[in-house]
Amino acid sequence: MTHELAISFLMQQAVENPGVISLAAGLVAPETLPVEEVRAAVDAITSSATRGRGALQYGTTPGYYKLRELILNHFCSLEGITREQAGIDIDNLMLTTGSQQLLSLVCEVLFDPGDICLISGPTYFVFAGNLDGVGARTVTIPVDDGGMRIDALEQALELLDQQGELSRVKLIYNVSYYDNPAGTCLATDRRRQLVELAQRYSRDHRILILEDAAYRELRYDGEAFPSIWSFDESRGWVIYTQTFSKTFSPGVRVGFGVVPRDLLAPLSERKGNEDFGSSNFAQHLVAEVLSSGAYESHLQKVRENYRAKRDAMVEAAHAHFADIDGVTWREPHGGLYVWMTLPANIPTGFSSPMFRTAVEKGVMYVPGEICYPTGMTNRPRTEMRLSYGVQSPEGIEKGMQILAEAVKARASDQE
Amino acid sequence: MTHELAISFLMQQAVENPGVISLAAGLVAPETLPVEEVRAAVDAITSSATRGRGALQYGTTPGYYKLRELILNHFCSLEGITREQAGIDIDNLMLTTGSQQLLSLVCEVLFDPGDICLISGPTYFVFAGNLDGVGARTVTIPVDDGGMRIDALEQALELLDQQGELSRVKLIYNVSYYDNPAGTCLATDRRRQLVELAQRYSRDHRILILEDAAYRELRYDGEAFPSIWSFDESRGWVIYTQTFSKTFSPGVRVGFGVVPRDLLAPLSERKGNEDFGSSNFAQHLVAEVLSSGAYESHLQKVRENYRAKRDAMVEAAHAHFADIDGVTWREPHGGLYVWMTLPANIPTGFSSPMFRTAVEKGVMYVPGEICYPTGMTNRPRTEMRLSYGVQSPEGIEKGMQILAEAVKARASDQE
Repeated sequence: MTHELAISFLMQQAVENPGVISLAAGLVAPETLPVEEVRAAVDAITSSATRGRGALQYGTTPGYYKLRELILNHFCSLEGITREQAGIDIDNLMLTTGSQQLLSLVCEVLFDPGDICLISGPTYFVFAGNLDGVGARTVTIPVDDGGMRIDALEQALELLDQQGELSRVKLIYNVSYYDNPAGTCLATDRRRQLVELAQRYSRDHRILILEDAAYRELRYDGEAFPSIWSFDESRGWVIYTQTFSKTFSPGVRVGFGVVPRDLLAPLSERKGNEDFGSSNFAQHLVAEVLSSGAYESHLQKVRENYRAKRDAMVEAAHAHFADIDGVTWREPHGGLYVWMTLPANIPTGFSSPMFRTAVEKGVMYVPGEICYPTGMTNRPRTEMRLSYGVQSPEGIEKGMQILAEAVKARASDQE
Repeated sequence: MTHELAISFLMQQAVENPGVISLAAGLVAPETLPVEEVRAAVDAITSSATRGRGALQYGTTPGYYKLRELILNHFCSLEGITREQAGIDIDNLMLTTGSQQLLSLVCEVLFDPGDICLISGPTYFVFAGNLDGVGARTVTIPVDDGGMRIDALEQALELLDQQGELSRVKLIYNVSYYDNPAGTCLATDRRRQLVELAQRYSRDHRILILEDAAYRELRYDGEAFPSIWSFDESRGWVIYTQTFSKTFSPGVRVGFGVVPRDLLAPLSERKGNEDFGSSNFAQHLVAEVLSSGAYESHLQKVRENYRAKRDAMVEAAHAHFADIDGVTWREPHGGLYVWMTLPANIPTGFSSPMFRTAVEKGVMYVPGEICYPTGMTNRPRTEMRLSYGVQSPEGIEKGMQILAEAVKARASDQE
């Protein structure tokens, strides 16, 4: 089953079973969506004819200059550095239709069929679809609580070198904050090692790192990790991407990339062919909320909302799953996902008794197996991605209770 | 020079020569941009939390259902038919980031390297870039005042058949209303013949027609042509695309396609990989202006604005070019462009004395040669695309006067 089909299947299940509590949907909590903030921003933009017209005219392919500048400042503030220390300027920034478009553009520009991308297993399954789309091969690196295992990454690179395949390795992809789906952050020392490895194995060509920081600003507690990007002092090895979809509004659809200077032209040329540039109006809107301070104050509310939901899911896991043998889960410090593993005899896939039982009882999840490349042998079959973004804390508690009942029913059937 | 580079060159010339009157820019007239209409639409959308949140949440890849329905009705009204007569439904509609993204998606989905697209010469040069991007070969069909010459198209298809290349022909591309750059509309009988030819030569596979109707609603006078699509009673041969960029706002960036039913899934899957769907917020905005009637009343104002500018350019052509031997031009009934041909000894390309003279004297145009495929032998070298969209009527008169002086200066140098 392709990843696109998997999403369609989940959406169809949701439509056909309207009473089901979805712990599958990766949507943003509707009650957090910034309706008043958007109205105020558009009022400001349209308060002068000149400014309004600027937002409604064609933009440029890399995106609205002022927003790129605001984002560069915002990025420096996340990094805790000055513009000077950053060693980059506005021509390292490009704006896209969500960060998804940047992921897609990177694949289109970097990969020839048969080229290799190193990814985590599990990983963000839509990106695996992008890799499939350009005919890339994937090598899957296992993860633990500290994210991608760098010892395994090094072994994989060494093996590829021995096999004469190093020249085909173009990219290492990592969701570095509150990973979708695993919920992990890459440990700080691994961030440094990742950059060192990419540079060390870049012999006849550059092996780039694509750092997907989509969830970076959704931190509820725990360590504030430096980016992988921060360890690349050359500013030439890491493509960093982030989005306003999770922290502000996915309907506005503005994402960005901080890219090595020499990659702006090819990425921009590709984007120019695809769409001439994303919505200029949406970019002016995000510029207004960033400069007015509305973004920061909204983000505080978003974090509080999700923190309460994260707490509800973790508490419900303890309450309902602690007594089921062989069930483990990871408790995230941010993001939107809890990653849960069931006993070895309870597979969780779409065609499994577990998935059917869960839907019948009234809850839905994302089977973990779709978060591994489709061609991977021995992919784990008993994991689940549980999202706490959309449901209320009460819905989460109820959904987790039902899910535990479904697991217990399957476990007793197996005995 | 690639088409992307050509645009960059023009933009750079504009920046370096700020006093120059640009008859090159394809931008929309800034004074027509709908600042008040957009403010009112966003007020309406954000007047209820539920509705506002609907616009700010993720949308679907093919686009906002209600907007697709409104566009289907709008399209039927342009066609002068009922929904029942149309024989299509909402699943034939897809929304894109401008119509440019639909052009790009069609190329990505239809073409393997070496496949063939039949295009007009001259044609919309950005689309030629999309064809290059997917490794398509182009066969250029000459045009006259009635648009693409169908006798020449038939000859080309016949020749391709004799050469055993018919199986590689995937698409015929036509800008059917007020062509960019030639200003022509495809004659009605040719529309019927075009569909018949595509169907007749579709032997082992379908040769599709891509009808680019970007300028359809910018009609100032003259005949209201039926679409090419209307002659395809099977509803299976024509991909029709249009945009709200020219008639409403390019910054909002909403275009659409009316596509054969079996193409929605592959186009949508491709778009899902690229960006998950365009800005849902922008789609809600366009839905509001379509359903409130603001779009139609705004469009009247836009047409009046451009009609006056078209008149100004045509009058200026008569006033300043009528006495220059060998200069001809086409007077369009809509759209944004006048296509002018200079005497055979005055080439107009970027590196020509004519282009340099024009910029020195204070006016800029798009050299006609970039509107032909870069690899085409014997492409005409003495044409110019003159846009009347951005300048005021006075600016157009002044620009045309300067341009005529530049032509006269070059003509006397040649004597």
